[in-house]
Formats: sequence, C-alpha cells, structure tokens
Amino acid sequence: MAFALKTDGTPTYALTFNGKAVIKTSTLGLEFKNDEKSLLNDFTIAKAETATHDSNWEPVWGEVKTIRNHYNELAVTLLQKGTDRTLIIRFRMFDEGLGLRYEFPSQKNLIYFVIKEERTQFAMAGDHTAFWLAGDYDSQEYDYTTSRLSEIRNLMQGSITDNASQTPFSPTGVQTALMMKTEDGLYINIHEAALINYSCMHLNLDDTNMVFQSWLTPDAEGDKGYMQAPGTSPWRTVMVSDDAREILANKMTYNLNEPNKIEDTSWIKPVKYMGVWWEMITGKSSWSYTNDLPSIQIGITDYSTAKPNGTHGATTANVKKYIDFASQHGFDGVLVEGWNIGWEDWFGHHKDYVFDFLTPYPDFDLPGLRDYAKSKGLKLIMHHETSGSTRNYERHLDKAFQFMKDNNYDAVKTGYVGNILPKGYYHYDQWTVNHYQYVVEKAAEYKIMVNAHEAVRPTGIARTYPNMIGNESARGTEFQAFGGSKPNHVTILPFTRQIGGPMDYTPGIFEMDISKANPSNSSHVNSTLANQLALYVTMYSPLQMAADFPENYSRFMDAFQFIKDVALDWDESKYLEAEPGQYITVARKEKGKSTWFLGNVNGETPRISNVSFDFLEQGKTYIATIYADAKEAHYKTNPQAYSIRKVVVTNKSKLQQWSASGYDQYRGSR
Amino acid sequence: MAFALKTDGTPTYALTFNGKAVIKTSTLGLEFKNDEKSLLNDFTIAKAETATHDSNWEPVWGEVKTIRNHYNELAVTLLQKGTDRTLIIRFRMFDEGLGLRYEFPSQKNLIYFVIKEERTQFAMAGDHTAFWLAGDYDSQEYDYTTSRLSEIRNLMQGSITDNASQTPFSPTGVQTALMMKTEDGLYINIHEAALINYSCMHLNLDDTNMVFQSWLTPDAEGDKGYMQAPGTSPWRTVMVSDDAREILANKMTYNLNEPNKIEDTSWIKPVKYMGVWWEMITGKSSWSYTNDLPSIQIGITDYSTAKPNGTHGATTANVKKYIDFASQHGFDGVLVEGWNIGWEDWFGHHKDYVFDFLTPYPDFDLPGLRDYAKSKGLKLIMHHETSGSTRNYERHLDKAFQFMKDNNYDAVKTGYVGNILPKGYYHYDQWTVNHYQYVVEKAAEYKIMVNAHEAVRPTGIARTYPNMIGNESARGTEFQAFGGSKPNHVTILPFTRQIGGPMDYTPGIFEMDISKANPSNSSHVNSTLANQLALYVTMYSPLQMAADFPENYSRFMDAFQFIKDVALDWDESKYLEAEPGQYITVARKEKGKSTWFLGNVNGETPRISNVSFDFLEQGKTYIATIYADAKEAHYKTNPQAYSIRKVVVTNKSKLQQWSASGYDQYRGSR
Repeated sequence: MAFALKTDGTPTYALTFNGKAVIKTSTLGLEFKNDEKSLLNDFTIAKAETATHDSNWEPVWGEVKTIRNHYNELAVTLLQKGTDRTLIIRFRMFDEGLGLRYEFPSQKNLIYFVIKEERTQFAMAGDHTAFWLAGDYDSQEYDYTTSRLSEIRNLMQGSITDNASQTPFSPTGVQTALMMKTEDGLYINIHEAALINYSCMHLNLDDTNMVFQSWLTPDAEGDKGYMQAPGTSPWRTVMVSDDAREILANKMTYNLNEPNKIEDTSWIKPVKYMGVWWEMITGKSSWSYTNDLPSIQIGITDYSTAKPNGTHGATTANVKKYIDFASQHGFDGVLVEGWNIGWEDWFGHHKDYVFDFLTPYPDFDLPGLRDYAKSKGLKLIMHHETSGSTRNYERHLDKAFQFMKDNNYDAVKTGYVGNILPKGYYHYDQWTVNHYQYVVEKAAEYKIMVNAHEAVRPTGIARTYPNMIGNESARGTEFQAFGGSKPNHVTILPFTRQIGGPMDYTPGIFEMDISKANPSNSSHVNSTLANQLALYVTMYSPLQMAADFPENYSRFMDAFQFIKDVALDWDESKYLEAEPGQYITVARKEKGKSTWFLGNVNGETPRISNVSFDFLEQGKTYIATIYADAKEAHYKTNPQAYSIRKVVVTNKSKLQQWSASGYDQYRGSR
Repeated sequence: MAFALKTDGTPTYALTFNGKAVIKTSTLGLEFKNDEKSLLNDFTIAKAETATHDSNWEPVWGEVKTIRNHYNELAVTLLQKGTDRTLIIRFRMFDEGLGLRYEFPSQKNLIYFVIKEERTQFAMAGDHTAFWLAGDYDSQEYDYTTSRLSEIRNLMQGSITDNASQTPFSPTGVQTALMMKTEDGLYINIHEAALINYSCMHLNLDDTNMVFQSWLTPDAEGDKGYMQAPGTSPWRTVMVSDDAREILANKMTYNLNEPNKIEDTSWIKPVKYMGVWWEMITGKSSWSYTNDLPSIQIGITDYSTAKPNGTHGATTANVKKYIDFASQHGFDGVLVEGWNIGWEDWFGHHKDYVFDFLTPYPDFDLPGLRDYAKSKGLKLIMHHETSGSTRNYERHLDKAFQFMKDNNYDAVKTGYVGNILPKGYYHYDQWTVNHYQYVVEKAAEYKIMVNAHEAVRPTGIARTYPNMIGNESARGTEFQAFGGSKPNHVTILPFTRQIGGPMDYTPGIFEMDISKANPSNSSHVNSTLANQLALYVTMYSPLQMAADFPENYSRFMDAFQFIKDVALDWDESKYLEAEPGQYITVARKEKGKSTWFLGNVNGETPRISNVSFDFLEQGKTYIATIYADAKEAHYKTNPQAYSIRKVVVTNKSKLQQWSASGYDQYRGSR
C-alpha cells in the first residue's frame, strides 16, 4: 500500500498484490455540508507513524477457535492549510488485505461537522467481473447479478425486484460487500468494518474509469452524517488474494472491530432451532389471528370477541407440535412468529404504535407454552417485528426484554419489514444504524441474543457484541417461497453478505414444491435436498434453523439426521474449494470434538468436487457419512433424489463427488 | 351555528352571535395525499343527531373550584358518494362558543389515510383587529403584533425575530390561539382543544376574502398527518362574546378534553418555586461547568480533570443559597438548571446523545443538596433540557424519572431548545406532538409533574393529565433579558397562549436593569416592579416562580411579601376588567380560604382601574393591602417606584387605582 499527497494536497492511496494493481491511485477525503474546504485537499503531512501488531483472540463463537490479528499500521497525520484542521488516515495492512479509516482527533477547528459525502475512491485496475447487488437505502434482498463492471449500468434495472421497502439511488450504485474477480486472477472484496453511528456505505461506479466512490446513505434531509470530533469513520476494507478460498477465510472484518465488550458471555450460546415461520412464509398459515378486524389499535382493539380466522399459525396446539418435534430431535429452541397482537394490519401504513411486544393472541398460551417448552428441555425464541417503527420499538424495549427474561426467552429475532419510521429515514442511514446498535447493546444488558432481520448488513460488530448471533440483511431462504432465488445464490453469499458476520439463512427446506403447503403459491425452492443440508456447513452461523415443517422432515428422517448432527461452533475451518458464483467446499471441525463436517454447494452447473482429506488427523480412521445428490437429482426436476452412504477415510483419502445443480455434503467422524 | 351542504356536497358551517356574523359560511373537509376525492365533497347527510349535555367537574387545580360543561351537540354523519366513506362532523355549541371536530368511524373504505391538508375554514365577517404571532413550525416565542387582518401580510416580516429554532411558512400564516376584535364589538378567539397524536394547527389567511384556513404542521416529507380510523381530529374552537372578560373565563378548551385519566392525584400539587435560572438567562453565570472542553461525549468525556470556569451557576454552594432563601420564605421548590453534564456544547449541532439526565457536574452534590433541601422542607425541581433531541430523551426517560423519584424530585421542567431530532421534524408536527404526550403520560406513571418549555402550545390536555402543571410555549420572561418584550405582552397572553392552559411565565423580576447582573447585557425588563407582582394573579398558573435573585428580593422585602402570600390555587376567579392588549383586572379567591387576591396589568398606556368589590362576602370587612405603582413609576424610567398601603374594604367598596405603564395589584383578606 502506498500513501501520497497529490500536488494540491489531496491524500491518495494505492494497493498492489504481488506486483498486480488492486487499487490504482485513489483519492481520500470527506466533503462537508456548507464547507467549501471540507477535508478534501490542501493537506500537508504532519506526521507518519508506523506500528506492527500481532495478537490472537478467541471469539465467543466462530469458525475457528483462535483468530490472529496481525497487521502493519501506518497512521498519517494531515494538517490542512488555511483551516488548521487535523485529519488522521489510519491504514492497517494485513496479509489478507487493507483496512483504512478516517480519524478526527479532538481539535479547535473541527468539532461538529456534517458529511455531505464521503469521497473514498477505489480505482479498479480493469473491467472486473463483479457479484453485485443494486445499491439501495432500504433493501439488500435482491438476487446477485454477475457481470463486468462496465455492464452494471445496463443490468441495473433488471437487478431490482420488488421489495417491502426499497430505495435504489444510482444506475451504477452497488452494495458492499462487493466481490470481484480480475482477469489476471485476483479476488478483490470491498466492504466496511465497525459501522457504528455512521451511515452505511454503498459504492458508486464511474464506469468510464472504473472508479468506485463511497456513497453514504442520506437522512431525511439528504445529509449523510452528523459527526463530532473526536471520532472516526468505520473502516473501509479491501481484501485481496489470488485464491478465492482466502477471501472466505479472511478475518480482517472482525479484527478491525473493537474487542468483546460483554464481560460475562456464559449466556451466549449457539442455537439450533425450528419455528412456526415457514408456514406463514409459504402462505399455508397466517401471522394474524382474525380477519374480522381490518384496523387494530393496540390497547384498544378487543380481540376477545373477534372470530379466529382458522389460519393462525401461532396457536398453542401448533406450537406444541413444533416443541414436541424439536425437543425429540435435540433442538435448542422454537421460534414463534405471529404470537403477539397487531398482525391484522401491521404493514404498509407508517403505523407508529404497531405492536406492543407484550400481548399474546388469545389462542397463544404464553405461560403454558413457556412451561411446556421448559419441560421438554428447550426454549421459545421471541419474535419482535417492528414493521420499521423504530421509535415504537425503543419505547417498548425495556419492558419487552424484561418480559422475555421473565418468561425464559433468551433470544429474539427482530424484524424491520417496510419503510422506516420516522418517515424520511432509511434502513441504512446513520439514524437507523444507531437504532440497531442501541437494540443490540440494550439486549446485552438483559443477556439477550439478537438475530436482526432487515437490519443493516453486519460489519463484524459481533466481535464487540457477540450477543448479535445472527442477521438476515440479504436475500434469505424466504425468497424461495416468494418466487425463488438463483441456484448459485449460496455460492455468492459467503463472499459478500457473510464477510461481515453470520447470516440467519434458514436452510433445511426438504419440500421444494411450495404448492404442497399452499396451493395458491406456485414457487419452487431452487435447490436439491442435499444442497439444503450442505448449507449448514457452507453458510457459517452459530444460529441455524431447520426451517421446514416437522411433517416434511418426517418423510426423510435419514437426511434429517444430518441436521440433527451438524455442529454450530467450530475449532477449525478449512476452505477446500471456492469460486464465487460456482462452488464452495468447506470442512469444519466441531468445537472441542474430533468430528468433522464438510459441505459443498454448487451453482447451476453440475460438478465433480475433488476433496482431499489431508486435514484429518494422521493415522486415524474416520467413518464418513456422505449425503449426496443421487445421479438423477436436479434442483428443478428432481430435488429430493439423494443418497446416503458410509465410507472409511483417512488423511490420505481422496474423494471425487459429483453434485447436481446444487450440492454435496459429507460428515466424517473418527 | 348552522350546518349545510353545498350543492356539490361540500360541508359548511356558519356561526352568529346575537344576530352578528362570527363565522360566515365556511367549508369543512380534509385533503388526503394521493386521493383525489379525499373527504372534501360529494357528501350526503346520512344522519343528524342532536344531544344536550350539562355536567360539572372539579379540576385537580384551577382558576375555579367547579367547571360546568354545558353544550348542545349536533353530530352530522356524512356519506360520500362514490367512495362509500363515512365522516362525522361533531359540533358542540356552548354559550361561550363553538367546538367542532372530524370523526372517522370504523369502516371498510377508510382505515389508513394521510392528510395533505386539513381544510377547515373560518371565514371572518370583516377586517378585524387581531393579536397575532407569525405562524411557525418551531417557535411561539415572538412578540404579538396587533393589526387589522389586512395588514398581516405587510407586517409579517417585522413580526419575526430571531429564535433558537424557527420555521415560518406563509406571509399570512398565524398561530392559534388567535384573538380578534371586530368593529361591532365582538371578541373572537380561534384555537384547538385536545391536540393528541395530530399535527398542530396554524391558520393561513386569504386576505382578499378574510378567510382563514387550517394549515397543519408537516413532517419531514411534507405530510401533515398519518391517520387511522377509528379516530378523530382535535377540536377546532371558536370562542365568541361581546365582553372580553368572558373570553378569559371561557372553559370550553378544558371541556372539550377527556376527563382526568390519573386515578390518584394526591401527588399533584401547585408549586411556588425559585431557581438557579435567571442568572444564566441574564448571562451572569453559566449552565456549563468548564471552558476547557469544547466537545463533550457523554460517558466518555472526563470532567474530573477539567478546570471549572468559575461562572457555573449550579454549584452546591449557590444552590444552598437559593434553598436557604426559598425555605425561609415558604417556597415549595428550587429549580436548578445546568446541574447535569453536557452543557459545554449542548446546542446547535443536531447532537443526538446530548445529555444523560443522570450525571451531575462535579461541583453539584446532588445527594447532599437533596438531603439539605429535605431538611429545609422543600424539594429540588429537576431540569431536563433535551436540546430537541427527542429520541435521546425517550431512551433515557425511564431511568431519568426513576432517578428523580429516588432523589425526592417530583416535578421536572423539560426543554426543547433548538431544532428537533430526528432532523426534518418540527416542534409542532404530529411526530413531535406525540413525543410530548408520551413524556407527560410516562411522567404520570412515575407520579411526576411536568412543566414543558418550547413544547407545543397547550390545548387543555391538563384536564386529562393534570400532572402537566405548566408549559412555556410562548414568549416568557426570559425575553426581557434577551432585549425585552412589548409592555402590553401580558395583557395579550391570557387571551391567547393561556386559552389552552397555564403558562410558566416566570414573573417576579424586581431588578429591571439587567446590566446590574451582567455588565455586557444591556437589556431592560419592560415592566414596573408592581406589574411583576400583578402577574401572579393575572397569569393564572398552579406553578409560579419567583424568578429574580434572592439578593434582589432582599432589597424589597415589603413587595416580596406579596409573592410569599399569593395563592396558587383558587375557588373562584372574577374577571373585572379586560381588553386585549390594554388591560386585565382579575380577582381570585384562594382555594378553601376567604382570602382574595386581585391583579391588574396594563399595557404601555397609564390607566385608572375602576374596581368594585361587590364580589366580597356581604357584611364582612376586609383589609386590602394595595401594592401599586407609585405616582412617579414608569416601566422604563422608574420601574421600582411602588407604594404599599392598607385600606378597609367591604362588598360595597369601590376603588379607583392609577397604574403606570404596567400595573396595579391588591390583596384583600378578611
């Protein structure tokens, strides 16, 4: 990495990898509102300090037992002529890539300032292939488009599909983490780390020069950040390697976050769960209790006389069915959505007081189910859909969390479906980013784990607040019931969305024909059953759902055995094969055990995976249980064709395993 | 009052008083966003129901012991052709004026709707004289302008003076309560009642036709109300009389609010208080503790090593001085502003986390002062300046209120100086109106009394939540130290601002030359000392401050005796003389006692007040202590010239009392 000032005093940096250009000379700076000079140019270098850091830390949960944080640091202190302002640009150079951020030290001439735009450039060295999502202030739930950078503009409109809340902003604007591949074999990933009280960054492409520039999410007045010195921007990260597997193994994002701030983490535990959820997603049942009441006023509307609609999913009897099945098969929790009043008109009205997070529907016996779950050795998982009404959620947060603790819940799935309240604000602006963080920190006070859906994409904050055990923040499995996702979606997510933290992808769908759950839903899950199993290994998360119905698992109990067996927490992770959009093969060793799990996912093209078991302990013999696509399997036409076989393997073994459009999966245990 | 539909089905109303037109035929309706039909026309009358109501209720505190709520009601149910929507317009006709509101009953074709503008007209019958403030989304703190309606446009610009937050919106937009006087001797007042979860109403004048139309405060996106049926608008009120005194005695605003919702009101008590406040307002001392720290981060900034600035007002020693003086003279409380960390940079930066409402400055010994105050028989009054950062306040509200209860505080002065956060929102929009109400209701849960400054103007909600014992919401005494207010200001406020509820006007300034407190402040308090005394009677409030310094009171202990003696709560109030902008004379009988207090304020013109004591009990003899302007008194040149004399009066007595540009004041006790 090279830092330099241009002749006009504009800071620049450039990045190479083994002699190949990764980031060509790119300018750095911030443009302020109503401030001509801003922090753009006229700088001189007051000081340039270097340092080296090398340490190891153990995450509370993770893909590996120990993470090494090893970098060389360059902190350039810049002095601006005329304004006498000081700006520090801090670079951290890892073997795996570069992190840089702006630091605003305490000073007389720069205390409060308003960011009009951050002007961090990432000048690409060519017309790379990118795996991109349309830049959007409110949605990350699109399918990825794979194209050359120069093609983004023409493909933009087609990349944007309907969403409950969406605000695209530019014909060449894309989201981070942005994964790219160059013609000369480099893999480049641009994202951010430690997004705290700052606006979420997008990238806008100058597609004449192939230069990305940061594009922050604005607030209701179009401003992009209210700042106070001393303070910093988040880190901007550029991962680079000539081996795609190293992008997946990269731990820069966590390393650029602050260490764990939660002293007692004994209550933070990986969770395998089932839930009353897929039946509402498919349209088989409803979140709402009644069709009698088109207008609900929390605390006023009387549900006691309303006629049940007969489709409500979160009934006591139905939840018991899930508890029975989940406890029988060793799950930790059961999520129940639609348990609380308000779902009859929860969406699309900018409704302020939309839920109270406290009051169950008449047919949901919360104390009874709480005790029943306890007697069966598992816990209910709370659901707090906010409908984007962030003030209302904050007003109820303490009581809602206390209510959880009083009723033996220790994990909550939050949701932000629809437009944000206050109106004019976006899912990814500074104001709302501040809200998500507030919820995570407040939850930590109550010893509650958070799995936030529709929240801003994660940026490694789970290092600092490991109670943030999951996030959606991308197109999850639910879209398979909303018309489907691309078959190669899961070969991209680990290179993009999961760079910032685990995803609650909710895999485990065994019945791909959604019309069997709901005759009026013709969606098809674009995956083989075996591919669904592989996701528990390839899509790392300490929170894993078995999302399908108990009755669907009952039809394939031999395959379901894998979901029962698969671990949630790991000592080691070995990325064996990886190519974004095409395939990922990963082997992971269960935490504190000698059992290995290995997963492979493909895109649309069938493929033979070549696996060497040389990661196994020398001299030991393992039995590998191989859950694979059957010969005749195909994600569209024959997704449930799988085979299960057991073979003996050692660290000398090799395996060639064919997988259909979709998948391959193995389990080995000594 | 006459209701009619125009030929196109637009609802209209008209109002006369003893044959004189008050409101000429005026249209009613609401314009929706993206809804051509809205609720504007094409109505037919489905039903017209009349009713009569007559009841009495006792306020928790007030000007009178019992309030009669007596009206005839007309509820017109309108059906809209084409949309099949139902709208009810409810009219309540009091002897004292008219209340009307829109009601949106539960129905299939109107559930959620967005108000683009409320279109309630008030067509004036002439070019009346008005006592008006510039319409503004953020400030009510202007001096009143008295002019013909036709002159508003030309006088608008001059009526707008600098404020910490201000957003005027129209050259003919004015605020309510709007007081008017007609050429044929009518007094007309337009305001609103029960402003709950709705946007505050202004009036915009068509000055060709002299027709006012409602103009609601918009949100960040320009929308003026997010509504859900069933629901209602606030009441729109038109008070009318041929006697200005009856406007002051009018209780319609309270009567149109819901009855008290607080069951146990034993903790709600009138409060007479002093405070560490005027010294900061004048610039004699500071809210802030240090000048070392231009940038404060709550929870991070270390105050322990900062050098005190030597001007901090809320020091333990200074507060003790106030406690000593206040307790010696029988006060109930001492307000302390600037007690909590954050004041070094609290204003003007859209700072989110500006205060925590919990952490005292190092030189403010909160537990010690709490105990000291208790030992002296009074309580400290809490101060929560929010700097307009409403989310931050809500986040801290529970803890801040619990902290108050833990430390023997039972009243809080809240403040909203500066622009509202979230940015793009206004002091008087629906979002922020909802916030003020949230605070009042939350305070009631904690048995805390609220005195909100810079909040939306009150609309009688104190009937429903009598813990709302005060509001500023107008230009208070502080402006006398910011350059001064017009001498007739206090002869208008009771006709305007106080229509909706009591004002924390903070009277009692004895030293009018502000430069004596702060040599660099050349402001002059435009009032005589005797006028300041009168305000305790003419400006009704259950919360009254003696705002000046103890040392200034010590110089005039004979006059200060009146402040010590004056009651805060009343069984009867008799408006003896009144003319907006010129004079007000009122006699009030102390609650549960036979003592009367009588106050008179004048505008700039000296005047002789003619008082008949016929309200006194027949056959009884009273001693009247008369605090009056001395002959040579003048608000500018000789404000401290007063006389005190005692005379015997009975219910046959009459008094001619001259007052200077300012004042006259009496006290009678049997």
